[in-house]
Amino acid sequence: MNAEDIRTVLVVGAGTMGGQIALQCAIHGLDVHLYDVSAAALESGMARVGGYARHLIAEGRADAAVLQRLTPTTDLAAAAAAADLVSESVPEDPALKGQVFAALHTLCPPQTIFTTNTSTLLPSMFAAASGRPERLVALHFHLPVWDANVADVMAHPGTSADVVETVTAFARRIGQIPIVAGRESSGYVFNAMLSALIDAALRLVAGGVAEVADVDRAWMGVMKMPIGPFGIIDAVGLDTVWKITDFWAGATGDPQSRANADLVRGYIDRGRLGHKSGGGFYDYPDPAFQRDGFMDYEGR
Amino acid sequence: MNAEDIRTVLVVGAGTMGGQIALQCAIHGLDVHLYDVSAAALESGMARVGGYARHLIAEGRADAAVLQRLTPTTDLAAAAAAADLVSESVPEDPALKGQVFAALHTLCPPQTIFTTNTSTLLPSMFAAASGRPERLVALHFHLPVWDANVADVMAHPGTSADVVETVTAFARRIGQIPIVAGRESSGYVFNAMLSALIDAALRLVAGGVAEVADVDRAWMGVMKMPIGPFGIIDAVGLDTVWKITDFWAGATGDPQSRANADLVRGYIDRGRLGHKSGGGFYDYPDPAFQRDGFMDYEGR
Repeated sequence: MNAEDIRTVLVVGAGTMGGQIALQCAIHGLDVHLYDVSAAALESGMARVGGYARHLIAEGRADAAVLQRLTPTTDLAAAAAAADLVSESVPEDPALKGQVFAALHTLCPPQTIFTTNTSTLLPSMFAAASGRPERLVALHFHLPVWDANVADVMAHPGTSADVVETVTAFARRIGQIPIVAGRESSGYVFNAMLSALIDAALRLVAGGVAEVADVDRAWMGVMKMPIGPFGIIDAVGLDTVWKITDFWAGATGDPQSRANADLVRGYIDRGRLGHKSGGGFYDYPDPAFQRDGFMDYEGR
Repeated sequence: MNAEDIRTVLVVGAGTMGGQIALQCAIHGLDVHLYDVSAAALESGMARVGGYARHLIAEGRADAAVLQRLTPTTDLAAAAAAADLVSESVPEDPALKGQVFAALHTLCPPQTIFTTNTSTLLPSMFAAASGRPERLVALHFHLPVWDANVADVMAHPGTSADVVETVTAFARRIGQIPIVAGRESSGYVFNAMLSALIDAALRLVAGGVAEVADVDRAWMGVMKMPIGPFGIIDAVGLDTVWKITDFWAGATGDPQSRANADLVRGYIDRGRLGHKSGGGFYDYPDPAFQRDGFMDYEGR
């Protein structure tokens, strides 16, 4: 199967990522089914997608009929039967992903390509369980999918070269810059670098070297970027960053990594999850780092 | 002494950093002496400074008389006697820095403030040797000083609070955003983050996960920056990055850190030091990452 033969996409999991992937495919003319096991999750996911769509239509970046190509469904069998390509965004549990793909394997036509949007796992962890390891590959997106338009393509050792090629071309077709990994590696390419940057920023604050605003000021001042690491953490979500920092603190036993995780946890425990909760390291809307004078503060 | 009482600055060491610091002070109206122990180094340093000055004057960012306020000298005694503040940029050897400050201590008035631009050492390593530890503080710049206008202010435990305050205000006076460190920490604030990012980028390539151009593409595509980590390494200089990676490989014994250092070393051994040598990870001028089509390449 070539990328241009892909007409119908099934996105499994209607969370933030699944919804954005589904919309991105619809923007690029594909017929999309968005499935979730929970009708409530599907409803709230579609509400989010509707909001994104209105915004992108208003900006002229999506056509007015985009949502007519995106069908929410809780009928997996029907959606699977029609799918040329599956994009999976269910929770980060290798056993769960294996079960989902095994079910899809019985429901999809034999040529359907399976892609996983896993952020932290490796496709080889559930390749055998999928029933069609040679047609399974990671196709991993970044948020927001239409702006941060980079997609990792990461095969496991059993993925066929044809599938890698088709999925790489498919990524381009839906407006993504494909980054093809040379081998399986947790964290892919961009996320590996972002994690390192966030880890260094947290160390500076947890270790008493610098305050949050000074860390961002230093980054923004040298890099001439409109946002620094703590602004980025607020956008990613402190809950997500905590999961990663907590995992590494446990895996390495490094006290400094634990201090990083604890720093994030302290904000979460006060309900500060970042942009989405109205506050994280900064308050939203109108965070300090976007205000005039932030860079030439008279502070301290 | 307050920051506005600083009229005359002595910059010790006419390398790239010393020359840029001297020029930045002159741009902001100070009388500057630029000293180097080597007349040849001073001459080539002043040639570089002249080039920067012409460029900044042409851009309207420096007045035509800026170089009249910047005097090269090999007479340390005379320049020291006139100095309100010293900025030291000699090679990164704590014994050498201690000797230089000890000599300056005998030559400068008692109220002269000593600042070090060390990138990797801590002021406490040569505070006692300086003869005036309470008036010694790090004031650390980033290249190019007029664009990457962030300066770390880092005291050692014996620095007086008045000196920190004066030097922080002085940094603002010469157009820098001061980042005051809460404690001594090798690598300061921005450099600690940049090192982590560069380390992660090198790991991806040395470990076979991604190619150089793909690493930069991923960073540029998500961050919407005009340069990625390998473009940044080319700008910093592979020799400088190698010194840091080699130091960490030795200090940690981590084989992956050694692989990072070896990756950089391989380029250096072929004469590829980065932008300044006409080539590093990219060829200059007109590096691939600045060309149209780099982001939507059809590569691999």
